[in-house]
Amino acid sequence: VIDVAHELPRHAIAPAALVLRNALAFMPTGVHMAVVDPGVGTDRRSVALACRDGNLLVGPDNGLLWLAAEQCGGIERAVDISRSPFGIEPVSATFHGRDLFAPVVARLATGTPVERTGEEIDPDSLVRLELPRPEVEAGQVTAAVISLDRFGNAQLNVDADQLDRAGIKRGDRVVIECGGRGHDGVVFGRTFADVEPGGMLIYEDSAQAIAIAVNRGDAAATLGLSLDSEVTLTKAGTVQ
Amino acid sequence: VIDVAHELPRHAIAPAALVLRNALAFMPTGVHMAVVDPGVGTDRRSVALACRDGNLLVGPDNGLLWLAAEQCGGIERAVDISRSPFGIEPVSATFHGRDLFAPVVARLATGTPVERTGEEIDPDSLVRLELPRPEVEAGQVTAAVISLDRFGNAQLNVDADQLDRAGIKRGDRVVIECGGRGHDGVVFGRTFADVEPGGMLIYEDSAQAIAIAVNRGDAAATLGLSLDSEVTLTKAGTVQ
Amino acid sequence: VIDVAHELPRHAIAPAALVLRNALAFMPTGVHMAVVDPGVGTDRRSVALACRDGNLLVGPDNGLLWLAAEQCGGIERAVDISRSPFGIEPVSATFHGRDLFAPVVARLATGTPVERTGEEIDPDSLVRLELPRPEVEAGQVTAAVISLDRFGNAQLNVDADQLDRAGIKRGDRVVIECGGRGHDGVVFGRTFADVEPGGMLIYEDSAQAIAIAVNRGDAAATLGLSLDSEVTLTKAGTVQ
Repeated sequence: VIDVAHELPRHAIAPAALVLRNALAFMPTGVHMAVVDPGVGTDRRSVALACRDGNLLVGPDNGLLWLAAEQCGGIERAVDISRSPFGIEPVSATFHGRDLFAPVVARLATGTPVERTGEEIDPDSLVRLELPRPEVEAGQVTAAVISLDRFGNAQLNVDADQLDRAGIKRGDRVVIECGGRGHDGVVFGRTFADVEPGGMLIYEDSAQAIAIAVNRGDAAATLGLSLDSEVTLTKAGTVQ
Repeated sequence: VIDVAHELPRHAIAPAALVLRNALAFMPTGVHMAVVDPGVGTDRRSVALACRDGNLLVGPDNGLLWLAAEQCGGIERAVDISRSPFGIEPVSATFHGRDLFAPVVARLATGTPVERTGEEIDPDSLVRLELPRPEVEAGQVTAAVISLDRFGNAQLNVDADQLDRAGIKRGDRVVIECGGRGHDGVVFGRTFADVEPGGMLIYEDSAQAIAIAVNRGDAAATLGLSLDSEVTLTKAGTVQ
Repeated sequence: VIDVAHELPRHAIAPAALVLRNALAFMPTGVHMAVVDPGVGTDRRSVALACRDGNLLVGPDNGLLWLAAEQCGGIERAVDISRSPFGIEPVSATFHGRDLFAPVVARLATGTPVERTGEEIDPDSLVRLELPRPEVEAGQVTAAVISLDRFGNAQLNVDADQLDRAGIKRGDRVVIECGGRGHDGVVFGRTFADVEPGGMLIYEDSAQAIAIAVNRGDAAATLGLSLDSEVTLTKAGTVQ
């Protein structure tokens, strides 16, 4: 049993979906359970998904598993486990991680075929997760914060190709606007120490997303960023 | 080795005793160590308890293990391990988890009989833990917060039967009074999404206690609750 | 796989180096990875160190491993793994824990000889970590906070022998000065409960360092301490 993360933001599906997707690229093939579940106990479905690459995903049908399923080659079979014979009776109304998902995961991990954990459903009926898309213009990209880590690094819904299409390249200086304020002196670097301690940078992070950081500091606190904050990156020149 | 919880409130024995008791109902039979130990290094005893259902509990004799021992069918044998031959010498004055409890647990887990870990003592001499009891009147229950989770959900020393005796049933509206202020519009629901996002509810939680939550919010922050806060629940009508 | 600690202060090498050193004294011989790495992606080296007692240490060459290596009998072989054949390609610029250290650790743990993980280097070329030394005078010690735990206990760069040389012994009263303010009524005790709840003490902690605590309270918050805070301990009498 490997614990990937326990300190994700509360009630926030997209950041957890990103953590799951990004972690799976570096995990052994197996059964993966995820629980960010504000709709627990309602009629939202609980699902087990068999992916084309052999991974199995278990959790609520609220989009949480969607990016991971794409990462795993797409869904071969989807099973509604809401009334799984393997749940602990009675299933509580507020803790399906304990009463339903974990017992189903234990069965899957010990060889029970996925179709025996509930009723097979059409994968096309699953709730999808769409990340917001950035606006890319000449010299400017308008983006959203999609994830924050405990260092205060803010991951954006932008990749290096999109910045490139806006004409923003590594080595450029950019202005970051958010919350009505502009911050200049930001460098498009490669790693934190490309700027002085306290300096701000954008960089391609370890999940191939563009992120904002402060070297030995906390970019989210410095800029007042939270999940879904809108951020505009504008090219302001090139570092000499 | 399974880590149940590391982020319990400091120095607070009752909330940790509840977490231990509630977790054990879903854990395999084995050796369980718990350390919330403000009296470490004083003459409070360290103990190993063999329970009637086969579970073994190790920790300080300060009430921390008491609810779990009840959950495990009661205590068959109690051993004072304060001067256990298995402690690491010298046992530090402030870290018995490392120097005494963990080495004893390792011995128990590898088959050493509990009576060889120290000196057998009378189970009746152990420090007990009594949770505060609620006041139940017609239409009103006065309760205390006994546990808070990281979502801000506040568990009360009340169960659904006690609410029922006060005439408060699922589907009722209640007023919550605490710290001199009243909060109405609270619903006795089944799960978080029974109210709109930001709405407040009471519900039977996954440990069969009544708890207060805010859907996608933080009830403890909203109401200014902390451990031992007094809360009054008053029936105010029934949801139509 | 044993997780020692995940909640160390950000970017702070010395406190993490102390945690690693102190933990290793109680860990089985094996391969130990540590990552506090503000210089990730720069030309700072990544290293694997084979210690004289059989332990292997993997991490950045920034002093983080230095105290642990001393604890483990000193370094027998040092290997620069910056361009290890076992890294995941491409190694990201900001997450060597995932892309370089962990894969090398996996190889070492499964028997690959350390010299095959990269290029052997002179152990004398490694970055060292020097902890600040206290000033010891008659009746007074000027010290620095080198580590803070989640209880607010503040570990100092002082041991009991140094206090003894200043004439400060267990049972003495001391005045603690920090940030321009004096705090008296502090007792040199053995454990937290040697003073009343809310009372302040100094004591020899479980790593044989002198630390400041408040019984059932938070010394760091009470005194406004952070890492590297300067603290003066002055003898003020003996408890009767």
